[in-house]
Amino acid sequence: MHPLANLHGKIMPLDEVTISPLDRGFIFGDAVYEVLRIYAGKPFLEQEHFDRFTRGLSELRITGVDMPRMRRRMHETIQAGGFTESMVYLQVTRGAAPRKHAFPKDATPLELLWVQEYHDTYRPLCQSGCAVITHPDLRWHRADIKSTNLLGNVIANQAATEAGCAEAILYLPDGTLTEASHSSFFAVKHGQLHTTPLKANVLPSITRNYTVKLCGQANIDVIERNLQRGELDDADELFLVGTTCEVLPIISVDGKPVQGGQPGPVTRRLQAIYTENVRAFLRA
Amino acid sequence: MHPLANLHGKIMPLDEVTISPLDRGFIFGDAVYEVLRIYAGKPFLEQEHFDRFTRGLSELRITGVDMPRMRRRMHETIQAGGFTESMVYLQVTRGAAPRKHAFPKDATPLELLWVQEYHDTYRPLCQSGCAVITHPDLRWHRADIKSTNLLGNVIANQAATEAGCAEAILYLPDGTLTEASHSSFFAVKHGQLHTTPLKANVLPSITRNYTVKLCGQANIDVIERNLQRGELDDADELFLVGTTCEVLPIISVDGKPVQGGQPGPVTRRLQAIYTENVRAFLRA
Repeated sequence: MHPLANLHGKIMPLDEVTISPLDRGFIFGDAVYEVLRIYAGKPFLEQEHFDRFTRGLSELRITGVDMPRMRRRMHETIQAGGFTESMVYLQVTRGAAPRKHAFPKDATPLELLWVQEYHDTYRPLCQSGCAVITHPDLRWHRADIKSTNLLGNVIANQAATEAGCAEAILYLPDGTLTEASHSSFFAVKHGQLHTTPLKANVLPSITRNYTVKLCGQANIDVIERNLQRGELDDADELFLVGTTCEVLPIISVDGKPVQGGQPGPVTRRLQAIYTENVRAFLRA
Repeated sequence: MHPLANLHGKIMPLDEVTISPLDRGFIFGDAVYEVLRIYAGKPFLEQEHFDRFTRGLSELRITGVDMPRMRRRMHETIQAGGFTESMVYLQVTRGAAPRKHAFPKDATPLELLWVQEYHDTYRPLCQSGCAVITHPDLRWHRADIKSTNLLGNVIANQAATEAGCAEAILYLPDGTLTEASHSSFFAVKHGQLHTTPLKANVLPSITRNYTVKLCGQANIDVIERNLQRGELDDADELFLVGTTCEVLPIISVDGKPVQGGQPGPVTRRLQAIYTENVRAFLRA
């Protein structure tokens, strides 16, 4: 099934959508995006994703986007395509205008989304656990905005791929860990979870926040603090979380096994809790 | 006269060019660009711009672009449009592929350029001098690559525009100045020029390097060192250089006048040298 797009309310095959070369998304990366997982036709954590989308547009001062309408378009497109296990990509740019750095006065934001089938390539990895590398965090200083200025993420992810790894955990010049190239990470120490605080230059990850909430319900302590690169060596367990990978155990970092080189009990427990909550969402 | 584009060798009006929404330039800012000034139909500092373009593609490992061909296309398009005073924008992306951070195996780079008339809006400013602000440098850690990850530049330039200023000089958290949002800057102290060394996280500006070369010929000392924000206050003169603004005097920073609030003698001398060298280039 080919991806189905919605451009300004018009549903069409993704490969019929065309973008102007003067679109500021193409010229400046002047754009915000979101990715949602659709389980059995139902968008998961929809409110949270749209809240972050709204905040990103607001931070970049991209105005005039009717967000409830964008949300309706997403639902219409999911339905029109008959998508069940799928994902939605949404992108809003500041629009097309003659190339000048400062905001154009009269550009209309580009409102694009598409739905595509989701092939769960993470399933076996979620069972076995995955290998990761660490990589310098090259990103800009507003990584809290989910913008399309993603070259720092791309370079880190490519390095991971070439090392045969699923992800790259990013570190600052002083060794402080931030997050992974397109997911967040948690360390488990003495039964407690540790993760980067949101006040750092990190994306307010929806799945991270959801995981923290699930931990609250399950009486698992979560400590938000800056972790150092060296601490990865003595963590009891490590795992990634993300919209598509859900809860993904890490079994090695830079070629060194994490403890027994097997997904640990806290990670397994969280995977079960996560799956149960998705099921409950589908029943609701 | 409308901008005339060249997409993969095909000359067409810019407004007929369309980009795929899956182009990695649109999705990730996975692209490198250049802007050249065309004086009387002749591209200025062409070799230098294409050298930097080649280096940027190489740093991002975007392969398979025939650069001499791209250069021929540029000349053909300038001629086809009969452009005299104009500028060329060139952009190469990693191409279109299903959205994944890591490099796709089989994407073909997008090769686009366009020529547009140049309206010299800088002329009066080059006479009177311009006002600038200082602004935090929000860019990523590979600002030496001329990529389209430009949100940090956009935000700074917008702040300058809102303050009624021509440019924003960027500073790091410790107060070190890097460069301006789309130009480079020089301070004049006791007849010597001071500018940021290229080993910092700055773009290897063609016009900066050209200015340094002109200074060598004119026996003006250039000292490459990190300048601090506070030093802007006690500079004898300040000026910007860039492909389109050429040599642009700064007469105020954050509302405070630079010395007499008038373009200084060293800046005026460099403007004259620059203009003379453009004239010599046109005679050659």
